[in-house]
Amino acid sequence: MSILVVGSVAMDTIETPFGKVTNALGGSAVYSSYSASFFSTVKLVAVVGSDFPEKYKNILKERKIDLQGLQEEEGKTFHWEGFYDFDLNTAHTINTELNVFENFEPVIPDSFKNTPYVFLANIDPELQLKVLNSIKHPKLVVCDTMNFWIEKKRDALLETIKKVDIFIINEGEARELSGESNLIKAAKKIRSFGPKGLIIKKGEHGALLFSDNIFSAPAYPLESVFDPTGAGDTFAGGFIGYLAKCGDLTDASLRRAVVRGTTMASFCVENFTLDRMRMLTETEITSRCRKIKELSHFENI
Amino acid sequence: MSILVVGSVAMDTIETPFGKVTNALGGSAVYSSYSASFFSTVKLVAVVGSDFPEKYKNILKERKIDLQGLQEEEGKTFHWEGFYDFDLNTAHTINTELNVFENFEPVIPDSFKNTPYVFLANIDPELQLKVLNSIKHPKLVVCDTMNFWIEKKRDALLETIKKVDIFIINEGEARELSGESNLIKAAKKIRSFGPKGLIIKKGEHGALLFSDNIFSAPAYPLESVFDPTGAGDTFAGGFIGYLAKCGDLTDASLRRAVVRGTTMASFCVENFTLDRMRMLTETEITSRCRKIKELSHFENI
Repeated sequence: MSILVVGSVAMDTIETPFGKVTNALGGSAVYSSYSASFFSTVKLVAVVGSDFPEKYKNILKERKIDLQGLQEEEGKTFHWEGFYDFDLNTAHTINTELNVFENFEPVIPDSFKNTPYVFLANIDPELQLKVLNSIKHPKLVVCDTMNFWIEKKRDALLETIKKVDIFIINEGEARELSGESNLIKAAKKIRSFGPKGLIIKKGEHGALLFSDNIFSAPAYPLESVFDPTGAGDTFAGGFIGYLAKCGDLTDASLRRAVVRGTTMASFCVENFTLDRMRMLTETEITSRCRKIKELSHFENI
Repeated sequence: MSILVVGSVAMDTIETPFGKVTNALGGSAVYSSYSASFFSTVKLVAVVGSDFPEKYKNILKERKIDLQGLQEEEGKTFHWEGFYDFDLNTAHTINTELNVFENFEPVIPDSFKNTPYVFLANIDPELQLKVLNSIKHPKLVVCDTMNFWIEKKRDALLETIKKVDIFIINEGEARELSGESNLIKAAKKIRSFGPKGLIIKKGEHGALLFSDNIFSAPAYPLESVFDPTGAGDTFAGGFIGYLAKCGDLTDASLRRAVVRGTTMASFCVENFTLDRMRMLTETEITSRCRKIKELSHFENI
């Protein structure tokens, strides 16, 4: 089944201890769509400026991502510039230019309005809510956010997550949103705000899924993280992509979807932008999922 | 098979957001011995002062811990005073009085020298090495340490871990000892110093075992951590206790031992000192191990 992704498309300038890229293809909608496209068909809604290169569109088209909803506005594409130190866990922002993204009003093409799976990637929660209200009876809505919205638009965010099925957030954001330092308490509180399911991403420590029960997924042990940009969105894309592919929402499928998300994110961080993902094969995905299984497997006796 | 534990016995004064205890039974050898005693017989080597209460000895005797090696010296028992904030991950020390522990020279009774399993709990690495040199052909030596020794006695510590089979360390200590922020790199480097196996404890994020391959164990999801003191030692006790019980060192057994360690630590932190552990039953241990299995279980399809 197909997935609607609404989020940002960006041109990122990123420096890590291992190199630098300038105006590389990025943004929450790009990473998540690209990742989801390995499992299901994806329809993207986002905005770019008139400077957005044709070759970047082609990268998305290569994966059959439907760009009907990619609005092009006069002006420049959203630009983020940042760097990472040797501790690759924290992004340091040098500059954020919203450009055409500042006045982004997502327009959902009519042909997209029946899409059963919806991923609201990280954008203003008010826009996420608008998108939700224009979708007809989605089967599953997954939503991401960031600390900026927790701090600046808490009420709108709470309004939005009331209406989503699965909310994805990172460890620090979970603590911030809930006011609880214990992650299990934090999860309980956030779920009391509305979302049936919650995923807390913990970077190098894996991810926790809270639904009918708790699932703890390990991270794939990577010795060299090249550039962590987009890992969270790639996780979300793999997660919803897998669910759209398997078509059910059983606990077993949700768990497998978390592992797919983990796997996709582990590939994403092996190079800048989509460089690693563009070389990715199904066999590699399957093989890494198997390694994650081995990594966490034990038998009680 | 039996286990020799060498470490500290302390009387701790601890305050957490949930209460306070004064001069409670504690110390690395106490927590680890008590935990290991659920799986195997334990022989303890440590020092206490003349103020050490008989009732504390009786708590250890209840679990049939052999106290022949518990030296009693004129003076006061090692005393640690500290507190934890709502973020229970960090212990804040108010006062450390080494007392009789300052001049501790572990004397291994002759009847202990053939003990096949040895746990060198957190004490001066020079003493750990001395102990090791007085043991005859141990089957397995497991060793713990702390940041203090990494900083003050790095050379002695490196000398010691060259000779141990499995080294247990926490996340921050692993980064400090190796100079690597990536835990997978850190593990590789520390193992290059000598120990065949390495366990990195990550508190609420579980534990990683590095041996022939990597095993990632989740933490047991506890909503209320009452007092984290002794969790690491209790983990180590459960780990070596289980290995001594099952008698082999296969990868499958090592993994199960990590899960036993995780389980025991999760009980330890549910109350002050050994209060929770003293009420612990075999059935509870088995049941929690099963829950940890469910927590991390998924099937690839």
